[in-house]
Order: sequence, then structure tokens, then C-alpha cells
Amino acid sequence: MKTPVSKLEKFTNDNARVDTAAVQPLPNSRKIYIQGSRADIQVPMREITQSDTATGRGAEKNPPIYVYDTSGPYTDPDTRIDIRHGLPPLREKWIDERGDTEILTGLSSSYSLKRLQDPALTKMRFNLMRPVRHARNGANVTQMHYARRGIITPEMEFIALRENQRRERVADLASNELLNRQHPGQSFGAIIQEWITPEFVRDEVACGRAIIPANINHPETEPMIIGRNFLVKINANIGNSALGSSIQDEVEKMTWAIRWGGDTVMDLSTGKNIHETREWIIRNSPVPIGTVPIYQALEKVDGKAEELTWEIFRDTLIEQAEQGVDYFTIHAGVRLPFIPMTAKRMTGIVSRGGSIMAKWCLAHHQESFLYTHFEDICEIMKAYDVSFSLGDGLRPGSIYDANDEAQFAELKTLGELTEIAWKHDVQVMIEGPGHVPMHLIRENMDLQLKYCHEAPFYTLGPLTTDIAPGYDHITSAIGAAMIGWYGTAMLCYVTPKEHLGLPDKDDVKDGIITYKIAAHAADLAKGHPGAQVRDNALSKARFEFRWNDQFNLSLDPDKAREFHDETLPQEGAKLAHFCSMCGPNFCSMKITQDVRDYAAQQGISETVALQEGMARKANEFIEKGGELYSKQ
Amino acid sequence: MKTPVSKLEKFTNDNARVDTAAVQPLPNSRKIYIQGSRADIQVPMREITQSDTATGRGAEKNPPIYVYDTSGPYTDPDTRIDIRHGLPPLREKWIDERGDTEILTGLSSSYSLKRLQDPALTKMRFNLMRPVRHARNGANVTQMHYARRGIITPEMEFIALRENQRRERVADLASNELLNRQHPGQSFGAIIQEWITPEFVRDEVACGRAIIPANINHPETEPMIIGRNFLVKINANIGNSALGSSIQDEVEKMTWAIRWGGDTVMDLSTGKNIHETREWIIRNSPVPIGTVPIYQALEKVDGKAEELTWEIFRDTLIEQAEQGVDYFTIHAGVRLPFIPMTAKRMTGIVSRGGSIMAKWCLAHHQESFLYTHFEDICEIMKAYDVSFSLGDGLRPGSIYDANDEAQFAELKTLGELTEIAWKHDVQVMIEGPGHVPMHLIRENMDLQLKYCHEAPFYTLGPLTTDIAPGYDHITSAIGAAMIGWYGTAMLCYVTPKEHLGLPDKDDVKDGIITYKIAAHAADLAKGHPGAQVRDNALSKARFEFRWNDQFNLSLDPDKAREFHDETLPQEGAKLAHFCSMCGPNFCSMKITQDVRDYAAQQGISETVALQEGMARKANEFIEKGGELYSKQ
Repeated sequence: MKTPVSKLEKFTNDNARVDTAAVQPLPNSRKIYIQGSRADIQVPMREITQSDTATGRGAEKNPPIYVYDTSGPYTDPDTRIDIRHGLPPLREKWIDERGDTEILTGLSSSYSLKRLQDPALTKMRFNLMRPVRHARNGANVTQMHYARRGIITPEMEFIALRENQRRERVADLASNELLNRQHPGQSFGAIIQEWITPEFVRDEVACGRAIIPANINHPETEPMIIGRNFLVKINANIGNSALGSSIQDEVEKMTWAIRWGGDTVMDLSTGKNIHETREWIIRNSPVPIGTVPIYQALEKVDGKAEELTWEIFRDTLIEQAEQGVDYFTIHAGVRLPFIPMTAKRMTGIVSRGGSIMAKWCLAHHQESFLYTHFEDICEIMKAYDVSFSLGDGLRPGSIYDANDEAQFAELKTLGELTEIAWKHDVQVMIEGPGHVPMHLIRENMDLQLKYCHEAPFYTLGPLTTDIAPGYDHITSAIGAAMIGWYGTAMLCYVTPKEHLGLPDKDDVKDGIITYKIAAHAADLAKGHPGAQVRDNALSKARFEFRWNDQFNLSLDPDKAREFHDETLPQEGAKLAHFCSMCGPNFCSMKITQDVRDYAAQQGISETVALQEGMARKANEFIEKGGELYSKQ
Repeated sequence: MKTPVSKLEKFTNDNARVDTAAVQPLPNSRKIYIQGSRADIQVPMREITQSDTATGRGAEKNPPIYVYDTSGPYTDPDTRIDIRHGLPPLREKWIDERGDTEILTGLSSSYSLKRLQDPALTKMRFNLMRPVRHARNGANVTQMHYARRGIITPEMEFIALRENQRRERVADLASNELLNRQHPGQSFGAIIQEWITPEFVRDEVACGRAIIPANINHPETEPMIIGRNFLVKINANIGNSALGSSIQDEVEKMTWAIRWGGDTVMDLSTGKNIHETREWIIRNSPVPIGTVPIYQALEKVDGKAEELTWEIFRDTLIEQAEQGVDYFTIHAGVRLPFIPMTAKRMTGIVSRGGSIMAKWCLAHHQESFLYTHFEDICEIMKAYDVSFSLGDGLRPGSIYDANDEAQFAELKTLGELTEIAWKHDVQVMIEGPGHVPMHLIRENMDLQLKYCHEAPFYTLGPLTTDIAPGYDHITSAIGAAMIGWYGTAMLCYVTPKEHLGLPDKDDVKDGIITYKIAAHAADLAKGHPGAQVRDNALSKARFEFRWNDQFNLSLDPDKAREFHDETLPQEGAKLAHFCSMCGPNFCSMKITQDVRDYAAQQGISETVALQEGMARKANEFIEKGGELYSKQ
């Protein structure tokens, strides 16, 4: 999977191809759409069909299971994919109808114009056919602005349906029983009744507790929401570096990441042609794209942090906003007085953005221009509806540095900046650590809620120990699941290559699946209505030896099947009432089923049968027992 | 790594070989021994040497780091390994000196005698030269019995030194500072002063809060302790099934598991020749071996649970106790009245032992013979010092079934049985779930402590979601780390193959490393003095670009190096002040270091420099700044 450096320059518009592995539907899965109040609100879901359960009384149907689907049109066989043309602009009409934007006749960023005029880039440039938009003079085009005026946008309705795909599932009796038993103090009846409505989405966005990253120049995006009263989301980082990978690789990583469940993708490119790479990614992405604009700004001054200026940064924001980036990480909380607080740390400043700004501050002995120009930045954000992801430039890079003075000083500042952004109706989420031992995780969540007024938290991990490079997807999934349960709205994945190298496609998948586990474990622990339906369905399939259903319902059907088939490759084994762990005569699931079958044969309910069996049927059970163990 | 079924019968005494991959010391590591109060108390540790830090003021030494070492003599180049002869009987003299055991002239188990007399097994039989011991008439040879009489055994002293290898490390200033900052409510000064003493070990064993699994017939074992006031331990399951793997494979899995950190190993074989397989494993194992004797008993009645008898089970206990099994999982809490409570579960009874006993109870309409003969079992246990691992036969097998009536009814019974065992001075730990969503984990720990009088808890995971077969090492590591933090003393690993197939060596390693992460994260969160020294050392190495030290200090040096080298294979890159993630000009760690170096060049302390820099040196910094970014 390694990318030879020589591939770097070879990508062109002519040889761009779709990754065929990433455009097949998953096994036994079908893309369906739920229509909203208007014909063009079509909310995608993945339907997983199950086989019947064979019982002594004939076949018992198992309902299809519906799961949240981030993979976009790629897994829809009815859509023709050509990455040279990008995805259909799903939201274009909605944006247009609002009448508060105008089509630009030329790009506003001088850097964009320069790249556009460079003939050397012609071959690799995405052939942009989509008009570029900007808010009409004085207009504010953020979803927060609409929400605060009481407007329910099509995006909000789309999101309500999307999160709500679980509505039908909560009718699942098993799930309801469990919710009542496992969350006795909470009134889930009420939540289920009035579960996610478009009004609820609007209200959460209006008060800042959730964001909808949806740049008006990224109409290809399928609306999604980040907030702690919704499903926990995950982000996958991709991006080239000076040492490897091409545009093609990055587009493939994006389609690969969303196939396995990435809710947003951050393009963290720092290598060559990052303007062009980004254009290709955005035009082909059905999920919101985030960036860290300071990375590109630094490239523009040849890596010399002290030469950065507000003007260069401003032009970069506009460049990226007009391409359609949905959220910007901005490290505006790295203030001059906080930098000395990091001097005695074990690992100093580990955030790239943070260290760039720290260096700039020291060189100029000035407050960071991100901080002093924060209101100017808000003006740009609201003209395109780019959301803030306020960066944690002083996050701890080791267990030793966790929860220190520098980290929390910055967090407090991020809370102050949140209030300024909200004054402009600009959407905000807050980035969080990093490296934190388990017992210090809750303090991070509690202080974030307090200082940042419940703006959504978006954390990297946290890693709960430093001693396992090569396994940091796991050290961090532990922290991610916990902080997700405590209230974090989105988890930024960590791959096995963290601290060691650039992730390839295998690493991207490992990171995604690991973080889907963390996010789902958090949804279960939060008591998200319906989250448990998939667990229940998979457990039932497992118990009934419906091996294919067990694979198909899992987060990674390919791997589950592959692992099973290593020991029992024969297709017949998928119907067998045993597996290779215990062999044909020694399966506890089978024994329990035998007990139940016995009860069923007697024509009495299970519980009564067991009790009666204890009282009267002991001998009869022994007689029939021999047969129950006969080989399959 | 798949084992063809045809290999099953091919193993013999003549072709037994050691796995050479598992007998090399880890990189830059050396086995050292700390001597106790007598010459034959030699406590092994692994010393990891570090390279110096290059600074502007010359080389700065980095001290060696000492880590707990479970790998036994295998990683000691001075020891000759021949698995046909087994390991040296380290504890033999200690056992002998106590004068409360006698050498048997013949084996006490009729099954053992039968196997011994079967000429077909000659070739594969381990050539046992070690005498078999039994308590002298009426004697009680358990470590708990000694502890309660105030005796400190050599085993206890060995353990104190072993857990205490961290004593010198807590002098590490960084660690102390952190402990004071991160656990402000706790007085770590006091804990560090009187950290693990032999008296403390004795007292913890005496009150039942910790166990030392150490059968008098397993003198090869290096003493270790399981209790919540000690380092969190992990167990690795191995064992053949009817469908695969040979004696050689299982011995290799054992040496492989302890190489990566397995503190105990359970042999869960259910296939062929499990008596002989077990003998080979025990004779070659420096860690305690656990089993589930009911598995073998069931094989003896051809898999017909209802034909099990107390006599067959009793003979199996004696057979295994005389081989040297250190702890037995016994599902004595599966009582007749609890079985109907499982009828409406999603996944019934998933414990193999639990389902066997449930079937027996129903067939006979009687209380389980494990329950009715519990005191008889205690009599056997105390004659060999086998510890109880009271099995959770009714543990939940799905999120849906977590924390239900059946599970807690059994747990309460296990508490009653604990009191009976303690009456006999027999050591006890309690097995725990299973599948539990995060928000229900703490209740498991709290009730276990309450019902079972603080006997050590030994949990399988728990898995925090059911939807990720193929990744259940991760779904369960989340739960394992949390419950370890809450107080679980030993974590039973889960491999990626869980629910799907028999783990091979790669899976065993993945399971072990994942669980070492969970256990270590728990040690950190519990504030275990010294646990963080390894994190600190690794983070410092990372920050200083000492790549080889970073690899060598990690749980899996091989993988860390392999991942790094995928992108930067040149040996020179191990000295480079960057990695492939950001490339040579864009490393935040490097930027922070540049800032510090700048301060050092000025001959002033960092903090002052940063502050002065802000006040006066801004221009100078800019001038010199250009150079700081020059390419390496």
C-alpha cells in the first residue's frame, strides 16, 4: 500500500479513476432513500437484509436492519461515478432558493487565481463546472443564522430524517425493554415519542449545541450534524505530506474512509499541489471536508512561520472557502501569554498549528493574528457558512502533560472565542486532546462544557497511554469511547501509524472501524434510542448460527467472513451450528438452544418448560438428550 | 498460521522443538535478576537501555528502564531451552523446605494412570522426571494458609520484589510531580515510602484480596500475584479444539503469549490428547496455568453432559492438580433455580461450562454437583494449592443480556462460595463478564466487591458492543481498561478471532498487546506509583527524535519499527528530526525544540527566555529564525 515518492507528480485529469473496491455495495446491503417533505430531500440509508430463522415451527422472518450510511452515491449501483466530474450538487437548489447568495464571476483569492492561470497545472486541475458562490452583500448564510430566525432548512429536515432512521427501529421490543431496564432513571418513552424532529435539529443548532458543517460551495454534501444529542460522529484525517502520496491516493482514501463510516474527512495535506488535491477531494466528497488553513498558509511562505501575515492567511481562508471546505481548524486560542506555560512540558507543543502560531508569536512578540483578527475571520466564515473547529494548539502530547495549565488556559480562551463567533451566528465546535489517562478524561469534558457553553466537543482520541506506538488506534479508542459517552460529539480517528508514519488505506480502514466501535459504544452508553437494534440483531444471528447475517450486520463484513473462513472455508460451514472455536459437539450456544428446542417440542413456553422440566421431566430429558447432541 | 488438521497427530517427543522466534531477547533488552534475602530468590526483570540525548551542551544520559518480565527463562541467553526437559523447578526447594508435602509413589487419578499405561501415547508423552507431590495428611499447603499464620513465604518475597521493581523508578522526578498533580487527593508520598513489602503481600493474601496461583506441582512457575492493589494482570487463553492445532502449536502459543506479556495462561483445550498437551504446557511454563476441568470431564463422557458425575469430575481435578494446574475455573454458581432466568435472554447461556452444568441440572433435576460438593472440592484444592477461579457460567453473551437477574444471582452465589473456600484457606478469584455496555460496567465491579468480599475480580473484556466481530479485541479492550481502573485485578484477553475462529499466533499477539494496553491504562488511572515511568521515557524519546529508543520502549518494538520503516526504511532516518507524517520542514516537536534550543543558546532558563524573548528579543529571534528551519 506504500506510495512511492515517484508517483507524486504522475496524477493527471486524464488518468483519474475511481477505486472500484470502494464502489461496490457491502454484502446483502442495498442503498435506499427516504423522501422528506419535498421530492429533492432523499435521505440515504443502508438496508441490510437478513435470512430467516429455521425453527421447528417453520421459518421465522428477521426484519431488515437500517444503518446510517456515510458512503454517498458510491455504493449506489444506480449512480454513475466519474471522479473527473465529481458528485451531483445535491444541495444546490436549496442554497439557490434561499436567495441570499450570488454567483461570483471570478475567484476572490489571489492565490486561487494564480493557480488557475498556471499552465503547468492544467493536466492535474479538476475541471470545475460548478459556480462559485458568496453571500450577497451583508447577508449571513450560516445554518445557525437560519436556525436563530426560526427557519427549518432542507438541510435540517434531511438531518432529522437521517438521525431518525432509527425511529422505526425503536419499536423493536427488545430494545425498548432493554432501555427501560438499563436506564431506569431516564424516561425513554418520552424521548422516543418526540425523537429527532426538524424543530429539534433547528433548536440545537440555534443554541450552538450542534453544528451542520455545510459550506455553500460544497453542495455535494449530504447534510449531517455534530452535537451531543445526536449520534456520535467520527472524522478521518487524510492528506499528503512532503514525503508521499498523490491526488489519486487521497481521493481513494476519502472514498475508502466514507465507505467504512467516516462522517467527515479532514484534508491535512502539507505536500505538493494541495490546492488541486483539495479540489478533487471536495468535488467527490458527500461528507463535510475540514482543513487546517494555516498549513497551506505556511507553505506559501516556504515554511517560515515568522513570515506569516494576516493577509496571507486571509487569502487562504477565502481560497478554501470558495472551494467548499466545510470547517476550518483555527488555532486562535494559542495566545502569547500561554506559551511559557509549555516550557516545562515533557513534549512541549505537539499541535502543528499550535507550534506554528507559537513561533510566530515569539518572533513578533505579538498576540497571534488569529486572535486579533478573530472577528474578521467570522466575517469570512458567515459569507460561506464555514464552521469553526477551534483548534487545541496546546493540547498535551503525552500522559505527563495532560490537563495542565497551558491546556486549560487555551480552552478557556476558546470559550471566549465561541461567544464572539456566536455573536456572528457562525457555527463552532471545539477541538480537544490528545493524550490523557483515563482518570483525567472526565475533567476535560466537564471543563469544555463549562468554558465553551456546550458548543460541540471534537476530540482526538484521547490516547490513554504512551507506550504502544503501532497500536495507538487502540490506546486512543479507549479514551474516545469514554469521552464520547461523557458527551463528545465527534471523535477524530487515530490510525495504527500514528507517531510512526503516513497511514495507507489499510490503516485508514483500521482507524475508521476502531472509531466506529468507540462511537457506537458511546451511543449505547448514552442510551441513544435505537442504537442497540444492530447489536441485538447481530447477537440474535450469532445465537442462531446465521453466520452470513452475523458477518453482514458487522462493521466489517469482509474481515468477519475472512476470519471465519480461515478455519472453516467450506460454504456449508456458514450453515453449521458450531464454529472452529469449540467444534461440532461443544458449543454453549447450541446447548442453550437445545434446551429451548426441547421446551418448544413440548409445546409449552420456555420458562414454564424449564420449571416443569425441573419438577417432572428429568428422566424424559435424559432419554431425549442423547439425540440433541447428535452430530450435524 | 493456520494449522492443518492433519498436523494433529504428528507431534511426538522426538520432533518437539522450541520456537526460536520466541527465545530472542527483545531489542536493546537484557534479562536481569534482583536477588532477595536468599540466593535462590532471583526476580527477573527486563532492562531496556536507552541512547543519550544530544544537546548543545554535550550528551545527556538517559537511564535504563526496567519493566516487569513475564517471558521466563526463554529470553535469557544464558539458559539452555529444551522443551523436552521443561524448565528448571525454581520453587522446588521452597516447597520442600516447608516440610508439609510428600512425594507420591504413584499418581492418584485413575485417568492419569490409564493414559500413562497407553502405549499408543508413548511417543507424544512428556518424559516427566519431576516428583509429584501431595500435602501430608491433613496439611493445608495454600499460600493463604501460610499468610493467615503470619508466614512470609519465598513466593511472597519474590512477588514483593517483582511488583516493586518500580521502587527505584518512582524516584523519577517527573513521575512524582505528575502523581502529585494528577492525583491531588491522594497521598502518594506515603504509598511510595512503604510501597510493596513482603508483609503487604502476605496481608493481602491473608484477607483474600489477592491470590498467588502456585500449585506445589508447578514448581517451574515464577511467583506472581493477582489483586487490585498490585499491577493489573492479563491472561491469555490457548488450547486446541476438535478442529485443529497440535501440542507443538499450543506450547508455541504459550511461549509466544508470555513473550508479549501474558501473566497467566489458560489451557482451554477440548480436542484430542488434552492430558498430554497440558503436561507439555505446564512443564514449559514459567507463568501460572489455569484450566476449566469440566471441559475434560465432558470429553471423558463423550460429550454427554447428563452423564457427568461427581466421581468423574473429582478424578479430573486430581489428575490436573497433580500435573500442576495453578487455578481451576469451576462454575459452581450455576444453580438450578437460576437456569429459568436465562430463558428470555437474547443469547441464553454462552459460557461453555455454564451450559454444560445447566444441561446437567435440568437432566437430573438436581442442584449441580459442583455446588453440592463444593467443600469436597476445597479439600482437593488445599492439598495442592490450586486456586479457585469461580466461573461466571451465567455471564451475558450480548449487550442485551448485560447485568440481568441471572448474572447477579450467580454472582451472589459466588460470594457465598468464596466464604466457604476461605474457611478452608483456599485462594479465590471471581470471573466476570462478558458483554456489557460502558454505562453498566461499574455496577459489575461494585456488586462484585460487595457480594464477593473483595476477592479479586477476573473479567473477560467486557465487550462494549456486539457489532464488530473481527475486532472484539478492541470492543473489549475499552471495557477491560475501564473495569481495570475500577478495580479488576486480572483481565482475560480477547483476540480478533473471538466469535469467529481459533486464534493463531498473530491473533494471540494482537490480543496480548491490546490487553497490555488496557492493563497499563488502568494502572495509570489507578495512580499506580511508577507505572508512568515508561510512558514518560517513551514520550521523552519521541520528543527528542530518539527513534530506536521509542521503538524499544514500546510494547511491540517489532511493529513500531516496521511501521516507521514502511515510509522511511533508511537507517539514517532513525536519527532524523522528522518523520514521514509531516516531512522534514514541518514538525511541531521540532519547532518546540527549536524554541527551547534558542533559549539554551542564550544561556538562560527556558521560561525566562520565553518571557524575555517576548519582551526584548523579538527581532533577534526573527533573524536567527531562518536558520532554525534549515533542512537537516
